[in-house]
Amino acid sequence: MAIAPNGIKEIRDRIQPLDLRAMEEAQARLDSLTKPPGSLGKLEAVARQAAGITGEPLPDLSRKAVIVMAGDHGVCEEGISAFPAEVTPQMVLNFLNGGAAVNVLARHAGAEVVCVDIGVNADLSHPGLVSKKIRRGTGNIARGPAMSREEAEAAIAVGYEVVAELAAGGTRVFATGEMGIGNTTPSAALLVALGGLKTEEAVGRGTGIDDARLLHKRSVVERALEANRADPNDALDVLAKLGGLEIAGLVGVILGAAAHRSLVVIDGFISSAAALVAGRLAPECLPYMIASHRSLEQGHGGMLETIGLAPMIHMDMRLGEGTGAVLCFHFLDAAGRIMREMATFESAGVSQA
Amino acid sequence: MAIAPNGIKEIRDRIQPLDLRAMEEAQARLDSLTKPPGSLGKLEAVARQAAGITGEPLPDLSRKAVIVMAGDHGVCEEGISAFPAEVTPQMVLNFLNGGAAVNVLARHAGAEVVCVDIGVNADLSHPGLVSKKIRRGTGNIARGPAMSREEAEAAIAVGYEVVAELAAGGTRVFATGEMGIGNTTPSAALLVALGGLKTEEAVGRGTGIDDARLLHKRSVVERALEANRADPNDALDVLAKLGGLEIAGLVGVILGAAAHRSLVVIDGFISSAAALVAGRLAPECLPYMIASHRSLEQGHGGMLETIGLAPMIHMDMRLGEGTGAVLCFHFLDAAGRIMREMATFESAGVSQA
Repeated sequence: MAIAPNGIKEIRDRIQPLDLRAMEEAQARLDSLTKPPGSLGKLEAVARQAAGITGEPLPDLSRKAVIVMAGDHGVCEEGISAFPAEVTPQMVLNFLNGGAAVNVLARHAGAEVVCVDIGVNADLSHPGLVSKKIRRGTGNIARGPAMSREEAEAAIAVGYEVVAELAAGGTRVFATGEMGIGNTTPSAALLVALGGLKTEEAVGRGTGIDDARLLHKRSVVERALEANRADPNDALDVLAKLGGLEIAGLVGVILGAAAHRSLVVIDGFISSAAALVAGRLAPECLPYMIASHRSLEQGHGGMLETIGLAPMIHMDMRLGEGTGAVLCFHFLDAAGRIMREMATFESAGVSQA
Repeated sequence: MAIAPNGIKEIRDRIQPLDLRAMEEAQARLDSLTKPPGSLGKLEAVARQAAGITGEPLPDLSRKAVIVMAGDHGVCEEGISAFPAEVTPQMVLNFLNGGAAVNVLARHAGAEVVCVDIGVNADLSHPGLVSKKIRRGTGNIARGPAMSREEAEAAIAVGYEVVAELAAGGTRVFATGEMGIGNTTPSAALLVALGGLKTEEAVGRGTGIDDARLLHKRSVVERALEANRADPNDALDVLAKLGGLEIAGLVGVILGAAAHRSLVVIDGFISSAAALVAGRLAPECLPYMIASHRSLEQGHGGMLETIGLAPMIHMDMRLGEGTGAVLCFHFLDAAGRIMREMATFESAGVSQA
């Protein structure tokens, strides 16, 4: 599908509300199981949500994929990251060769890793790579827009299409992942612009910068906000001016998952920036999101609160790639097994409260 | 082994400090992998800790067991629980038949469930049951001691022996689990007596009591503290007077795991009460503990802080049985795979910071 001027509206029209009847059926099943009602907490919430999303009380969620969108950032020339920009293409090859953390954790979770070049500033070629480059890296947001509105829409369309294809093959669970040296900077800018947080609340240490570089990074985000003056009531404008190609691609992944009645597990700070934008563009997609981890990156807690998500794990992770989201696939499987395998009060002869 | 008057001292002598050299080797491996140093947070901490506990940088942690200790509580006659006491033996049979939440989650984690009758107030017989009943339920702590000091020592010995036998068969990861209607009440009493929390901070809703019953439960805990006047500097005295048989059994499980250089994953509020006691009896066992989840039970956050543990997951669970601990076995496996399978900066040709 092409995302033309009315692309977002078309996507919104395709997103259904959750199926309340399937959720009620799931709830009734949960309440019949040998445990105090609600005592499995978020495992029960996820079982209910999966029923509502798919329309089936006991959906088959065995096919899962993490979509790793990769893109570069012009703002790296401001010296805001601990790692050089050349690491973006190097890590893409690492993903394709199966050696990165997200590959290991995806194998552990029985999930596929789909790596998409949506804006890497290098020529990449690999049989496993999904090549959908919109442009070679964004513009430097400290001086002007990251990309044009049309480029942002095209990047959203890429994410949507990747999900559509996987959904056609039976995948119903997606995780958001990303790679892009420098991408906590645009993510923090999005959080300030859309979430109303202060720069010092939103800007963190990324892959591990020191105090001096942190202060510099804050000033770069302030310059980016000043240079672009994005309209906070126009999320597409904010995304295009302050975001990144991989962030826009993940917006498309989230919208695509919702349009295809699939679960989308949100990873850390950068993925959550995409979730924040997606929720503003199409609030209909919010019930399809599952928060995974609370990252150590400074603004992540505030970001999740702004979106309205409560994370499942607190592992002090700050790696991205989709690692935290993929770790939480485990809980979706666990919730499914609870629904299928636990004894009921009646079958086990256990007294109720 | 028998735990005679000097039993605890003998156990303490068997607990070694963590192997720092193995931890350094694990750390060097972690720092060579293609990720910012430390960016996998608690996954890295667990990999380091497992190395220190076992003395091997890449230990085999494939054999895992959750020990579910079951016992009844005389204090149930005060009406402090939402469920009737008959549910304890009913749930033990449910565990033995594989239908409870902990069974489902243990199967999902590839772990064994070992169910121990250490104090159920009913005659139980099942080929899968480990029958080690010390007595049929505790005394009512609102009126006097839960058990004698000798009974508490015998219950600790049961837990220690169950672990010793499994460790001899190659199990190196244990989770603490329990079943005992009413057991949040003695756990809260232990927290007040040993942790210094106020009764209103320590007493929660357990399996789901209403406001009126919660106020009553607080007053029962206050009466228990008043009736027993346990010596806070003598953790065994506190355990015997205010604890439970399954709690004492879990103290033995924790001490046994530490003495056998095995990891012990601590479940929720009741298990954490056992961890609090174990840490006071033998501080040497503290580095062997891994916190799993932060439960919804009111005093659990304060309990974990008192012990010095930081939980990995925040799933709003409040079921016990070992369910939260077993869910976290996943992270031990994930940490092991990260150590074994991730590419290094050198092997992948990725630039460092």
